[in-house]
Amino acid sequence: MSSPERRVELRSDTFTLPSREMLEAMVVAELGDDGYGEDPTVNELEAMAAHVIGKDAACFMPSGTMGNLSAIMTHCPRGAKVIMGAESDIYLYEAGGASVCGGVVYHPVPNRADGTMDLGLIAAAFPASPGDPQYALPALLCLENPQNHRGGKVLPASYLREVTTFARENGLTVHLDGSRIFNAALSARVPAAQLAGYADSVMFCLSKGLGAPVGSIVAGTAAFVRDVRRLRKMLGGGMRQAGVLAAAGIVALANRDRLADDHVSARRLADGLAAMSELAVERVEPGINMVFFRVATSELDTHAFIAAAQARGVRLAELGHNRIRAVTHNGVTADDIGYALDVIGSILADARRRGRTDCRRVLAG
Amino acid sequence: MSSPERRVELRSDTFTLPSREMLEAMVVAELGDDGYGEDPTVNELEAMAAHVIGKDAACFMPSGTMGNLSAIMTHCPRGAKVIMGAESDIYLYEAGGASVCGGVVYHPVPNRADGTMDLGLIAAAFPASPGDPQYALPALLCLENPQNHRGGKVLPASYLREVTTFARENGLTVHLDGSRIFNAALSARVPAAQLAGYADSVMFCLSKGLGAPVGSIVAGTAAFVRDVRRLRKMLGGGMRQAGVLAAAGIVALANRDRLADDHVSARRLADGLAAMSELAVERVEPGINMVFFRVATSELDTHAFIAAAQARGVRLAELGHNRIRAVTHNGVTADDIGYALDVIGSILADARRRGRTDCRRVLAG
Amino acid sequence: MSSPERRVELRSDTFTLPSREMLEAMVVAELGDDGYGEDPTVNELEAMAAHVIGKDAACFMPSGTMGNLSAIMTHCPRGAKVIMGAESDIYLYEAGGASVCGGVVYHPVPNRADGTMDLGLIAAAFPASPGDPQYALPALLCLENPQNHRGGKVLPASYLREVTTFARENGLTVHLDGSRIFNAALSARVPAAQLAGYADSVMFCLSKGLGAPVGSIVAGTAAFVRDVRRLRKMLGGGMRQAGVLAAAGIVALANRDRLADDHVSARRLADGLAAMSELAVERVEPGINMVFFRVATSELDTHAFIAAAQARGVRLAELGHNRIRAVTHNGVTADDIGYALDVIGSILADARRRGRTDCRRVLAG
Amino acid sequence: MSSPERRVELRSDTFTLPSREMLEAMVVAELGDDGYGEDPTVNELEAMAAHVIGKDAACFMPSGTMGNLSAIMTHCPRGAKVIMGAESDIYLYEAGGASVCGGVVYHPVPNRADGTMDLGLIAAAFPASPGDPQYALPALLCLENPQNHRGGKVLPASYLREVTTFARENGLTVHLDGSRIFNAALSARVPAAQLAGYADSVMFCLSKGLGAPVGSIVAGTAAFVRDVRRLRKMLGGGMRQAGVLAAAGIVALANRDRLADDHVSARRLADGLAAMSELAVERVEPGINMVFFRVATSELDTHAFIAAAQARGVRLAELGHNRIRAVTHNGVTADDIGYALDVIGSILADARRRGRTDCRRVLAG
Repeated sequence: MSSPERRVELRSDTFTLPSREMLEAMVVAELGDDGYGEDPTVNELEAMAAHVIGKDAACFMPSGTMGNLSAIMTHCPRGAKVIMGAESDIYLYEAGGASVCGGVVYHPVPNRADGTMDLGLIAAAFPASPGDPQYALPALLCLENPQNHRGGKVLPASYLREVTTFARENGLTVHLDGSRIFNAALSARVPAAQLAGYADSVMFCLSKGLGAPVGSIVAGTAAFVRDVRRLRKMLGGGMRQAGVLAAAGIVALANRDRLADDHVSARRLADGLAAMSELAVERVEPGINMVFFRVATSELDTHAFIAAAQARGVRLAELGHNRIRAVTHNGVTADDIGYALDVIGSILADARRRGRTDCRRVLAG
Repeated sequence: MSSPERRVELRSDTFTLPSREMLEAMVVAELGDDGYGEDPTVNELEAMAAHVIGKDAACFMPSGTMGNLSAIMTHCPRGAKVIMGAESDIYLYEAGGASVCGGVVYHPVPNRADGTMDLGLIAAAFPASPGDPQYALPALLCLENPQNHRGGKVLPASYLREVTTFARENGLTVHLDGSRIFNAALSARVPAAQLAGYADSVMFCLSKGLGAPVGSIVAGTAAFVRDVRRLRKMLGGGMRQAGVLAAAGIVALANRDRLADDHVSARRLADGLAAMSELAVERVEPGINMVFFRVATSELDTHAFIAAAQARGVRLAELGHNRIRAVTHNGVTADDIGYALDVIGSILADARRRGRTDCRRVLAG
Repeated sequence: MSSPERRVELRSDTFTLPSREMLEAMVVAELGDDGYGEDPTVNELEAMAAHVIGKDAACFMPSGTMGNLSAIMTHCPRGAKVIMGAESDIYLYEAGGASVCGGVVYHPVPNRADGTMDLGLIAAAFPASPGDPQYALPALLCLENPQNHRGGKVLPASYLREVTTFARENGLTVHLDGSRIFNAALSARVPAAQLAGYADSVMFCLSKGLGAPVGSIVAGTAAFVRDVRRLRKMLGGGMRQAGVLAAAGIVALANRDRLADDHVSARRLADGLAAMSELAVERVEPGINMVFFRVATSELDTHAFIAAAQARGVRLAELGHNRIRAVTHNGVTADDIGYALDVIGSILADARRRGRTDCRRVLAG
Repeated sequence: MSSPERRVELRSDTFTLPSREMLEAMVVAELGDDGYGEDPTVNELEAMAAHVIGKDAACFMPSGTMGNLSAIMTHCPRGAKVIMGAESDIYLYEAGGASVCGGVVYHPVPNRADGTMDLGLIAAAFPASPGDPQYALPALLCLENPQNHRGGKVLPASYLREVTTFARENGLTVHLDGSRIFNAALSARVPAAQLAGYADSVMFCLSKGLGAPVGSIVAGTAAFVRDVRRLRKMLGGGMRQAGVLAAAGIVALANRDRLADDHVSARRLADGLAAMSELAVERVEPGINMVFFRVATSELDTHAFIAAAQARGVRLAELGHNRIRAVTHNGVTADDIGYALDVIGSILADARRRGRTDCRRVLAG
């Protein structure tokens, strides 16, 4: 396969490259040893992040995985149950870390098409007789907003109120996996802090759409963050002159409204794909940077389709069986969207042509 | 509530009391320190159990919970996934021990009405790209036969072949929670060893229907049992003159065909209950010692029904919301079944009478 | 090796066989399902044990290992340090269970010759800056009384006061591994409850010198025991008609003063051994049932000595390198002590004779 | 305390700031998503690191703590013992992570003054009867070279041969905590790969003396590194455009011989301090970047001494009780050493003067 001249990276917004502004900030950042709490840039980022997300305190993490893991371990004693979506990133993509490192028991609950979980099914995680020692007892509910695997679904405010009220009434702490919370906030036209306000703790990523090269934030009460920080050290997430990363994170966070551009791109991409009859495009949330679709023609196999696009520089990912995800981000221009649509259109046209030829061959055979 | 003269214990077969024969065996058993492997009665029971269940070796356990826990920990390295039914006893009633003690990740799959799990859903536990480190990888499949929570369902031989073939082809070891495997064997009219033969390891209980006061068996290859024995010590299941318990276990195991009486009792009970129009009785497996039913009249609440029965000495348990389980065992005679049916019938009659009175009151009100 | 007619079991007091009185109690015990808390004999034993040991509540365990493990896990959150003797049974002989099942970090401190630990070394387990997340923080101190591996040493009351005061002042909970606490109590001429009073929780064995076939007790506050009971279920220590074991435990506990006989036997044995010039006998605690000694002649290897004794029915154990432990218990009569001394004396005499012969051969060679 | 104009940071080499060359490399580095293995700069660093350290493969880590933790977890199954120095960084400063996350049991062995551990004490970690399930079994030996806490001691080649031969003969895998291995290599005048060659796996830091802002390397066989990489993801050490850090790491690794300057500085500092009669300076290894000393005069308390130095910009750390560590690195010039010696000299002179005054006061009192 010849190396294509042009490359449009739609597999994930984790591919975002740092902007010039970020690189410049990294070079001039004042640094210190964050192992001693003496990196001023890290301290600045953590203060800024806590403010933006509306929590008392925040802690910088090398990844969202460690953010979620340390939050779950802080909230859950050994042997407690953590309830989360069966299609949540925490359950699917974080290698079961809370069971391995924390002795925490996962209790997955199905996610509905809109990303929510049925309250009755959450309630069913509680045993009728909690005093009976044969039961692990639920301690934590993890929400994900937007819900990635169900199509970048933004959870409705009414649902957030309802489910967190239920949690409070039943003694559950609530952690929010908000790795893309600023996308959800733009979509819901509310400050991210309002979305985070439903939860006791929140994790969000500075990488992904915000574009920083490395890093995530965990935020909550001061006591919670102190405990999370202890776990970060034990897990190996304590870094030295982490200010080089935090400097980029500050720029990323300051420019978070740039995500609106990605939503426009996603909309354009979705509209363009929807016009192609061989594709079945899932409804795109207003204001999210993802498009999910399937190849709905017998003339073309999903993997062949993805390979053909890749051969012409358009990178798409399969997320679940035969389901394709395209994610827009700061590395995808309006022109790139046009190019991607052209490439996809021409792949489908080729398939149609081959299909007709094959058909004629069959008829003539 | 006055203490009733007569008592019919139908809550569980875990209430079985040791027979006279067992007590006599316990008193005369030759004993030694099983911590040194020198209790001859334990050694005899383990050899007998391995033979009966058709495995190379067996290990005596203080409980089925420890049997399952040590089996899962032996089969699964830290961080592996164990797949089991979402309504299996291991998932529901064993306090998440494999996550706490073993760092193992539970992957529950729904049990269908017949107790089986859909192979497609088992397959879905495997990630498309196992080399991707974000995934916990399945290592073990746990089956339960008979499947308690779905109504004591005996898994069909065709399903056992199919699911274990799938497991082998996909690198899964198979552990069988056969806490009541001798009931299932009688029901399926095959030796228990044949049912156990589908699995790499098996746990069965000497308490429950077999009637021993304490103890379960884990069986498998010699190497597996050696590792299970190490874990038993660490978990605190190593006992000293355990021969006092093993002696009862030997009697229990020798008399395992007695379970057929319990199946007759369960059938009689089910037929009697089915004749009462206020009750909805689930189909009873031929040859299982459980009857599941619901109170299907608005005139009587489930908890009130259970309490009324208890007041007259008939003990029933709620297993799941408003679902009642009655279990027959060696402590329940044919006469007891008759008494229980009389008691239940008269409670329902009382409710009908009160219902009519209430109704008249309402009409007259 | 021909099977000897007479057998004197001195390897451990874990070899004790149940007395006739125990066996009779087991047969007539009123039983129930302890999984539901309905075994009256277990309940009676637990109440009696709590009373005898001077704690609010107690829980019956299948082994001392599980008693210690569940106590440590209840006292220590994941990641906490448990401080104990480097020669304590918990550190040496319980397979590291608290790290495996509880994520607890062992901090062994050397035991001095008298069984105690230096307070300075306990203090050294605390970091200078506890807020620094690189440190695991101590939460629990485990004492062992009598201290088995240092020779069955009974900890002095002054030390107990000092070390537990230190613990309290430094925020450490104290757990006492008192597997042979009634031996220590007789030796110290105080009630066992007084020794247990220094600690927040205590474990003692009904097997070992007390002679019950199976079982141990964990005792402490009601809240502590409730949590221990949850863990017992998860670990697999929940047993059904456990009253058959508890009945023997009640007899064992009632007859605990019988241990004084074992101390007399141990004294006689020690005096007899000390009179043999080839043996180096460690000072025996007044009132403990153990004698430790070494073969102090080049004419006889320890393993050969143990094998020769075994060939004549006297069973001895090596506890540590070339160190022999002899333990007296209810299965060792005054006659048995005499026989054991005769056997050992004659083995040493044989060795002397062979040594002289060898010597002559060397001289003549 | 007024902010000093000049600052000499001697607390640790973890305070090193990235050089201009590093910052420039970070800005121009070619980046990608390392979550997909597509960051070319990370890949380049890992290949370079494997080559330099003489192993098949290497993995970039956010910290040395995670490097050691993932190495231990890869080598040790749950329940295995890891043997390491009681004064090793892994045992003292990594929060017990291997017990928490891995269910691994720590077995600390005293470090002698030269940093080594007695082979007899390592052997004592093995039980006489490994088949007895009451024992946790050793699986891994961790060495530390140079040994930080014993004074930056470089382990002699003869010892490395001896201890690793012992390990191999006894079935122990060997992991080397070589966080400052390039210091040791310069000191021993051998390539670092030769030192790493004694071990199956090795961790070294790019931060510390090498001066990169963030990151460490774990290296070993390809299979080992593949498993370490899985654990890195689970622990949350998977980073996205990690090439920004790796770029600095490449520069750091290329310039590793620069460490020789730090050794010269340490020697100068040690000589200067040794000339002050109030200080007791430990013997400095030829070619290590650390000086350990104590204030050996009753006229000055250690904490007061450290505070006085800090007030004048010279930062020193207490490492253990009343023991002071000064570490040289790329941020400490020859001039800085001179300044630090002046400051310390004048603090001691002040103390002498005050001491005489106090003395006169006492005499006159």
